[in-house]
Amino acid sequence: MPECLAFRVPTRHPADVSGVMELIAGGAVAADEIVAIFGKTEGNGCVNDFTRQLAVMALETALAGAMGCTPASVGARVALVMSGGTEGGLSPHLLVLARRDGPDAPGGTALAVGTAFTADFPPEAIGRMAQVRATAAAVADAMARAGIDDAADVHFVQVKCPLLTSARIHEAADRGQPVATHDTYASMGLSRGASALGIALALGEVAEADLSDAAIGARRDLYSGRASASAGIELMRNEVIVLGNAPGWSGPLAIAHRVMRDGIDFFAIQGALADLGFPGSGQLAPEASGRIVALLAKAEPSHDGLIRGRRHIMNDDSDINATRHARALVGGVAAAAIGRTDLFVSGGAEHQGPDGGGPVAIIARVRD
Amino acid sequence: MPECLAFRVPTRHPADVSGVMELIAGGAVAADEIVAIFGKTEGNGCVNDFTRQLAVMALETALAGAMGCTPASVGARVALVMSGGTEGGLSPHLLVLARRDGPDAPGGTALAVGTAFTADFPPEAIGRMAQVRATAAAVADAMARAGIDDAADVHFVQVKCPLLTSARIHEAADRGQPVATHDTYASMGLSRGASALGIALALGEVAEADLSDAAIGARRDLYSGRASASAGIELMRNEVIVLGNAPGWSGPLAIAHRVMRDGIDFFAIQGALADLGFPGSGQLAPEASGRIVALLAKAEPSHDGLIRGRRHIMNDDSDINATRHARALVGGVAAAAIGRTDLFVSGGAEHQGPDGGGPVAIIARVRD
Amino acid sequence: MPECLAFRVPTRHPADVSGVMELIAGGAVAADEIVAIFGKTEGNGCVNDFTRQLAVMALETALAGAMGCTPASVGARVALVMSGGTEGGLSPHLLVLARRDGPDAPGGTALAVGTAFTADFPPEAIGRMAQVRATAAAVADAMARAGIDDAADVHFVQVKCPLLTSARIHEAADRGQPVATHDTYASMGLSRGASALGIALALGEVAEADLSDAAIGARRDLYSGRASASAGIELMRNEVIVLGNAPGWSGPLAIAHRVMRDGIDFFAIQGALADLGFPGSGQLAPEASGRIVALLAKAEPSHDGLIRGRRHIMNDDSDINATRHARALVGGVAAAAIGRTDLFVSGGAEHQGPDGGGPVAIIARVRD
Amino acid sequence: MPECLAFRVPTRHPADVSGVMELIAGGAVAADEIVAIFGKTEGNGCVNDFTRQLAVMALETALAGAMGCTPASVGARVALVMSGGTEGGLSPHLLVLARRDGPDAPGGTALAVGTAFTADFPPEAIGRMAQVRATAAAVADAMARAGIDDAADVHFVQVKCPLLTSARIHEAADRGQPVATHDTYASMGLSRGASALGIALALGEVAEADLSDAAIGARRDLYSGRASASAGIELMRNEVIVLGNAPGWSGPLAIAHRVMRDGIDFFAIQGALADLGFPGSGQLAPEASGRIVALLAKAEPSHDGLIRGRRHIMNDDSDINATRHARALVGGVAAAAIGRTDLFVSGGAEHQGPDGGGPVAIIARVRD
Repeated sequence: MPECLAFRVPTRHPADVSGVMELIAGGAVAADEIVAIFGKTEGNGCVNDFTRQLAVMALETALAGAMGCTPASVGARVALVMSGGTEGGLSPHLLVLARRDGPDAPGGTALAVGTAFTADFPPEAIGRMAQVRATAAAVADAMARAGIDDAADVHFVQVKCPLLTSARIHEAADRGQPVATHDTYASMGLSRGASALGIALALGEVAEADLSDAAIGARRDLYSGRASASAGIELMRNEVIVLGNAPGWSGPLAIAHRVMRDGIDFFAIQGALADLGFPGSGQLAPEASGRIVALLAKAEPSHDGLIRGRRHIMNDDSDINATRHARALVGGVAAAAIGRTDLFVSGGAEHQGPDGGGPVAIIARVRD
Repeated sequence: MPECLAFRVPTRHPADVSGVMELIAGGAVAADEIVAIFGKTEGNGCVNDFTRQLAVMALETALAGAMGCTPASVGARVALVMSGGTEGGLSPHLLVLARRDGPDAPGGTALAVGTAFTADFPPEAIGRMAQVRATAAAVADAMARAGIDDAADVHFVQVKCPLLTSARIHEAADRGQPVATHDTYASMGLSRGASALGIALALGEVAEADLSDAAIGARRDLYSGRASASAGIELMRNEVIVLGNAPGWSGPLAIAHRVMRDGIDFFAIQGALADLGFPGSGQLAPEASGRIVALLAKAEPSHDGLIRGRRHIMNDDSDINATRHARALVGGVAAAAIGRTDLFVSGGAEHQGPDGGGPVAIIARVRD
Repeated sequence: MPECLAFRVPTRHPADVSGVMELIAGGAVAADEIVAIFGKTEGNGCVNDFTRQLAVMALETALAGAMGCTPASVGARVALVMSGGTEGGLSPHLLVLARRDGPDAPGGTALAVGTAFTADFPPEAIGRMAQVRATAAAVADAMARAGIDDAADVHFVQVKCPLLTSARIHEAADRGQPVATHDTYASMGLSRGASALGIALALGEVAEADLSDAAIGARRDLYSGRASASAGIELMRNEVIVLGNAPGWSGPLAIAHRVMRDGIDFFAIQGALADLGFPGSGQLAPEASGRIVALLAKAEPSHDGLIRGRRHIMNDDSDINATRHARALVGGVAAAAIGRTDLFVSGGAEHQGPDGGGPVAIIARVRD
Repeated sequence: MPECLAFRVPTRHPADVSGVMELIAGGAVAADEIVAIFGKTEGNGCVNDFTRQLAVMALETALAGAMGCTPASVGARVALVMSGGTEGGLSPHLLVLARRDGPDAPGGTALAVGTAFTADFPPEAIGRMAQVRATAAAVADAMARAGIDDAADVHFVQVKCPLLTSARIHEAADRGQPVATHDTYASMGLSRGASALGIALALGEVAEADLSDAAIGARRDLYSGRASASAGIELMRNEVIVLGNAPGWSGPLAIAHRVMRDGIDFFAIQGALADLGFPGSGQLAPEASGRIVALLAKAEPSHDGLIRGRRHIMNDDSDINATRHARALVGGVAAAAIGRTDLFVSGGAEHQGPDGGGPVAIIARVRD
């Protein structure tokens, strides 16, 4: 009977793998059991954020030693999902997800995880239906690996997806293939959007007939309430991690989610906490806060420039990118609820929840 | 019997005075009744934030017409306290404070306000004991004008203070007067710190014997729990506004405050709300949120680089100033409690609350 | 016989009008003679750059006193063209252009100036053919006022044009009018592009048949070699200033221009200097540098991400806007030639010269 | 007889080592011959610039394979000097310096190189005399390895030095050792300054009696005209590379240097070019430009806020660090002279040339 293990370790800088290696050295997890590592790194989370690549390179090198394989093959076995941007008070950290097989236990459900990868995309596929469909297929694969039959048991799907750079755009142009956008920053949004619609398609949240190249990034009414996509310069494929509660899994962890309707939707976080049995008033007390293993949320500025009717300046700020403001805001709201700042708030929530809002999922230790 | 009126008006840009002029045109307040206007403007809140100066210029021009005086004399009568920086989800707005004399009402206390100004400082006084002592004297003056005898009845003291620029540093140097720092950004912190210690001195929160030029910016154990200081390039004096609850004042408003011990101290905000009779669980419901006229808070990164033991990156970020991160964080935490984003969160909390924390005050309509 | 006067005055901050007022007080120019003021202000030159608005407000207020009119009517008489962004070593300053009528002088040509304004645009006209055509008509008007019949005698046309903000976009949407883009930053480029194509149309540099809404911002082969457009939040019309050498004008000043083919085209600057009789080797010596009254240039990153085959990072930088990098670069190249930093280098050269390059014009004292 | 080889290779991103590996694969240089690699990477060049660490990690991993050693031991053999910041038009690239032993050739001098490393510094040594003295000793060692006896034959000394982070400051504090500054950004300047004074001491440019902890960062009259120091988060020792022209070396390369007295000192660059036999007027023609192998320059804002009497805004800009402005400016001036943008302009010139200026060295192919 499998168990999904989850460990949160702080980092001192983007290349700091000491926390992960101590988990392995101390026997908390075996290197071969690790299926995914989520990371918040302290870059700008935008086009020229190389902290993601640095973290991936450091993790691949370190895990290669522990796994007895090459750095390149680490990436083929473990989904490394680095999300840049720790604005406001967010604390850089890694979330290690592992699968361990153990003896059968009677009844109940527990946290379950499954992963899958698409093939590498050519630049011209990014932000288009080819990426939507490949992502949907990968989500189905990952669900099967997690033993989840019912889409309702899926509470969070993380995708790491590529972006366009000037070099990639020109490489495609040299082959006569126009790309979805020539604005490299905009390409991050289209790639995240296509990935999220792929998740929504796999989970039955949108109808395939409503989807098209033109709908990506435009039809804000189409979204997944459980999708999280992060774009990074360091890969050309989509990496998918499905998290849910499933029978046949053991262990003390469970996951719940809600959809934040805007960036200050404290009630959504309290709702997810209530689903996991936590009291709903104010900020969690230290003991309860200590049982929260992860909060995973998406942040995005609303396109109408308003939060509950009041103007925000995210979209008009040419010094700080809008996603950086949004991460800072949602990070503050989430920290207000949880009482800690090592939270996985990632930016760019295109088709991931309603405009200006986004999914929030919480993993907690709900039994001993 | 005086009444302190408080109006919050949104702005569309830093020079937007339409909301204030509509208040006057509609008869809600007379121009001559206005004693102070606080504003959150959408600049960077740092050295080269000219949105504060723009807002002041626009307000002075508009109010001069309404008051029948020159723009320059508006500033002599009304304290215009513009605080730059609306990071995260914070919403640019103005808070108009006015004093209206009316018929006597029996017993009780209500929101009270008093203002006072220091003389202009020479550059070499900024961030030094001369600024501390002049501020303390101005606080005493403002308390007297508010009719507050007991320092315990003071819940918030706002100071607008100057900063050093390269030009001002050289002007002083030409006179043979060295300034407290040649780092213009650092001068903002020293000016805020000296102002806050002046408030602490006036309110009996620190002993004069503990104060010295060397203590300013260094002795983090010395602070006021009710001080808020904002530095701006557009003035050379300190402008002081004292807010408290005082007998002899009428009206439906009251003020309460607490000290946030760190940037995510949700309990402090809930405590201030409880003092004003609001229920303490989660986020205020819309009706209650509508009765909150102002939340005034200070934000600052902790110097040890930690929030409850977890690393933040504010102090190591060379792209976004640390105070900008801190405002975004505290703005998110406060919005989580209040359910709205037009909050007066200002950065740079030197000697304004404990390291990494700061005062938070709330003005609310507590009776009809 | 008219004379075009040109004065360059430094500013200590965006609202510093002391240099202009000293010119008037000292009799160098009469307030009524001023037809245009160009300014480099120290904002970010992008959407949320309020230094332009601040400078305009300060100039209007100060000139109103000198002209004996209201601040609002100053703007109707004088074209105030503030360009934000003094990256690298660029020095904030104002360039005052005035027209003085004097006695007839025999033969020759000299610097000539003419101005014209369009009507205010609705938001939906910005970045579209309506803006192109209105600009072309205004250029023709301004040429007529300058007494320039032949387009070949025009060496520089400056346009100040509006941009879209979230508020303006929504105002248009409320009237059922879609705007050219919902990206406020992108709107600056479209507005500059439409303005530049209007200039190109008026000067016969492009054929009207090649122009369309779709061509704006897209057809990089269509451009003016004498256009300079700056977008600002503080106006809704286009303000046009035509500069050339014309018979019938007197005075010691002349203007010349070249087109920089890329951001490091030092030869173009040397060419314009040679046209004005300056020696062409290296940096101007102090005496010659002192005779340069203004250098006006446009800066823009090349879209292929290359300068002479070598990669630049302007388009991939999410911390600093690409136009800020470009202004810093061209400012350095121009300062290398002229030996001073108070140069009017403005960003965003859409349809203003070839991709990655832009026009450069120099005004100099060529006779006593 | 040794020859110093120098190769400039472009990079597509900070971890791009393909150009270096192609040099090795193509036989242009053997891995064991490489003594130093200078790199311009596209980070912010400030505290949180992780592109330097990423480039170092990528180079160490790639060269380990070519050298048959571990990545860690690559760093012990090759000085990897990554300088962040390619503002303006600067182009990211690597400069590979190698030493090859060959047959004796008659007479003459040629480019010579020598390297040396200090031991790791504890945090409390950074920016203090301990760092000055250790650097001076390392310069002497490197000169000896380059076979340079006379300090006058040294034309450029590059040092890579460490900086303080919050973590390092606290580690030292835990041992009761106060550090030179608690401002992590300021620590970069002190570390560069101490390193530069170490070079000046070794080259006889300053007297040891004038040096003290207090002089570091304060006595701007003390400087080296040949020092270049870059601070990075990825190391704790100083790495020194000495470049000069020395008898006993062969090959077509030579080096020359001048001191730029300010950021727009075009004459200094032309002087160094003239020393190498290049014509001195305007921008180099393509053939001559192709013979320039490297331009190495330091950039720094002047502390008085002026360039030749005109205000710059570098020191008052809270959005873009002053060193970023300075690099952009000097990069533009240098590109104006050389006609290409792959130039090694690094920021932070404390004690590296006069205030606001800095050394500039040029390596060129002067014979076939």
